[in-house]
Amino acid sequence: MRLRAEPLSRAAFEAFGDVIETSGLSGESINRGSTQKFADLARLELGNGGRAALHIFKSEAAPMPFRIESLERHMLGSQAFIPLHDRPFPVVVAAPGDEPDAGRIRAFITNGCQGVNLRPGTWHHYLLCLGQPSDFLVIDREGEQVDCETWELAEPLILDYGPTP
Amino acid sequence: MRLRAEPLSRAAFEAFGDVIETSGLSGESINRGSTQKFADLARLELGNGGRAALHIFKSEAAPMPFRIESLERHMLGSQAFIPLHDRPFPVVVAAPGDEPDAGRIRAFITNGCQGVNLRPGTWHHYLLCLGQPSDFLVIDREGEQVDCETWELAEPLILDYGPTP
Repeated sequence: MRLRAEPLSRAAFEAFGDVIETSGLSGESINRGSTQKFADLARLELGNGGRAALHIFKSEAAPMPFRIESLERHMLGSQAFIPLHDRPFPVVVAAPGDEPDAGRIRAFITNGCQGVNLRPGTWHHYLLCLGQPSDFLVIDREGEQVDCETWELAEPLILDYGPTP
Repeated sequence: MRLRAEPLSRAAFEAFGDVIETSGLSGESINRGSTQKFADLARLELGNGGRAALHIFKSEAAPMPFRIESLERHMLGSQAFIPLHDRPFPVVVAAPGDEPDAGRIRAFITNGCQGVNLRPGTWHHYLLCLGQPSDFLVIDREGEQVDCETWELAEPLILDYGPTP
């Protein structure tokens, strides 16, 4: 089974979380006119008995085609991934639910200027990046107990995405 | 009065907040070995009756030399600025206190791979960037009431920093 990557957009990603981007939005002028502020680009949910945490993930490029074998979810907090570079990366998700609906797993590819914020409960593959090692800023919730469940797929999905030639 | 920009480092910035960088740290291997996680790079304080918020600031380059005429502070929450590019930017701060000590205002210049997280109460100039328009991810606290006090300096300070020739 192959998984086709769709272009990431706010509308397409609505069931899974937020697309962190300024495209199509108008900013508010602040700082004596030197800055446009694009406010509240993600619904961060970082409390719930835990605390807000900020990390940097340094990821190796995933070999393509890539075997999607498992998904994970965090029930208690959102998780945001913002690339510290301007290259597309794939986002593999399935809607919240007791288990992922294997037939409705979706893959999105960012346009290079987008991050994502996964809603609590959204099933997702761990961070993948393409082409070269890449740094991501990650904002999530940390708590006393581990808030990560993993689901192994009965059949792996094959995600194939190469940079546009 | 001129303000000299010092290189930003964790040690030098300790009184003001966190430097968000991976340099000198060892990560933890996650995601089946594909990712190094550099955890908890900032002490985010985003609660205090408010909520965590995420913004993108698109800033015009500040003309150099730049007149530092005022500082501001947020008492109830931290404020993080992470560049979405790899160019240095200046950070002008003064230690928390009822008013900034004008003789102890300091300017730092990032190395291009650093962000900052300002501790609640740290006096700071609004975001400045150099050379070309730049995008920053901003993570701060939003609440019902505005949490921003501004202090006008009796004498402006002149910040002069040009890119290394």
